Amino acid sequence: MQEYSRCLRRQGKRIGLVPTMGYLHEGHLSLVRRSVRENDKTVVSVFVNPMQFGPREDFKKYPRAFKRDEEMLRRSGVDVLFYPSSKAVYPEPYYTTVNVEYLTEPLCDRSRPGHFRGVTTVVAKLFNITTPDSAYFGRKDAQQAAVIKKMAVDLNMGIKIVTMPIVREKGGLAMSSRNAYLSEEERRDAAVLYEALALAKGMIKKGRRSSGEIKDAMRGLIRKKKTAKIDYIEIVNEDTFKNISRPTGKVLIALAVYIGRTRLIDNIRLKAGYYQ
Amino acid sequence: MQEYSRCLRRQGKRIGLVPTMGYLHEGHLSLVRRSVRENDKTVVSVFVNPMQFGPREDFKKYPRAFKRDEEMLRRSGVDVLFYPSSKAVYPEPYYTTVNVEYLTEPLCDRSRPGHFRGVTTVVAKLFNITTPDSAYFGRKDAQQAAVIKKMAVDLNMGIKIVTMPIVREKGGLAMSSRNAYLSEEERRDAAVLYEALALAKGMIKKGRRSSGEIKDAMRGLIRKKKTAKIDYIEIVNEDTFKNISRPTGKVLIALAVYIGRTRLIDNIRLKAGYYQ
Repeated sequence: MQEYSRCLRRQGKRIGLVPTMGYLHEGHLSLVRRSVRENDKTVVSVFVNPMQFGPREDFKKYPRAFKRDEEMLRRSGVDVLFYPSSKAVYPEPYYTTVNVEYLTEPLCDRSRPGHFRGVTTVVAKLFNITTPDSAYFGRKDAQQAAVIKKMAVDLNMGIKIVTMPIVREKGGLAMSSRNAYLSEEERRDAAVLYEALALAKGMIKKGRRSSGEIKDAMRGLIRKKKTAKIDYIEIVNEDTFKNISRPTGKVLIALAVYIGRTRLIDNIRLKAGYYQ
Repeated sequence: MQEYSRCLRRQGKRIGLVPTMGYLHEGHLSLVRRSVRENDKTVVSVFVNPMQFGPREDFKKYPRAFKRDEEMLRRSGVDVLFYPSSKAVYPEPYYTTVNVEYLTEPLCDRSRPGHFRGVTTVVAKLFNITTPDSAYFGRKDAQQAAVIKKMAVDLNMGIKIVTMPIVREKGGLAMSSRNAYLSEEERRDAAVLYEALALAKGMIKKGRRSSGEIKDAMRGLIRKKKTAKIDYIEIVNEDTFKNISRPTGKVLIALAVYIGRTRLIDNIRLKAGYYQ
């Protein structure tokens, strides 16, 4: 893979990379389509990265469907499907990590310590192997996208990080490979993540400016669902991921909720112009 | 710099990088000459990296002589002298680090915590900016070279790490920019680092196989010098940097000694064939 991408670079070809953990859905495909449009060659990596899962998390049962993924990518005009084994990515002994401080501390790292270190490490490796000009990430993982952007800038990777909007199912549920874990009842309850975000957005539109009050209302709504258990609800500055007590400027409202045993995340951004 | 190196890569040119902190001596020049011989273009970076100095270390007074360095490099056939400012290398806010675990824990990291994280971080950045095929490091910093080799492999950098032998002054003192700190008396005493290594080598040649006994003899020799204070003396496996109680196989004997207020390091390698 590395030899091939270096060869492409020598030929002056623009390379786009879409890093995924497979079990692809419409969210991934929106990234793929943009990369195909913007580059000479699009590489999609499919790698369920053990380093970003905690010891009690769902690494083993994470959904995998390689043949289906392969078929979807073939139809999407992807040039290279990069599908390495864990042993090839982390040959023993493996000692090196990439860390982004501060940005990784709030939100998801609290309930998933070391998660982002696993993400930045594998993404740094994938970048070195595939040498992309641009790499594409979904905004559902808003914190992940911000952390990777920061890594790319700080380490002078010279790679443009492109993010794309969340793709949602009809009821508002953000598309995620983990939705495959949900029972029918859970899938109905899972719509509450987006409903809570929409509620928050509506309250702000109506002039409410207390993050505490807004989060309370969101909590109240989510707690009505039998299978839901809140991990976090945060209202933060979109750039710094620091909590803000009064939503104003570029705001990200983000939440993680367990639906049964499945942890789902979602978020909305409010642009600086939103508040009138 | 990054644009220029990418342009060179597109032209299929081989790039060699010699990362330095300046105040160049014959040790650096041996790296430069090898790079000039092996590559189409040689880049030498001169950057005194604040991240690898502890808060009480000698970052501020580290010797700098840019004009002299520039002149030496010009005469050595170097193509590019890359001389960035601290602000350009670490624009605020700066959050990202690269860490190599285990290999960094023994020897120098004990007395210089965080030192290697600073080294690997800046070297990863320099690699991304200058996109070398090969990078050149001196074996005086044996642990540094091993740590950087491991980083390059683990993160799939596709860069060959070349190391070169220690260059010594007549009395045996390993060349180092920090030798500039030494008074005349200290410079005489500093020869004891190499004398202690030679003593150890001789003992092993004669069949002694107790690391404890050998280190005791080295300590005894060094303590005779008024200005010397031992930081560490270690006999380790050259690949793992783990202590070995009986020197055999690929062995590194390494030491760090304060001569007055100046911390100096030195080492020798014994190849697996040395023991008869």
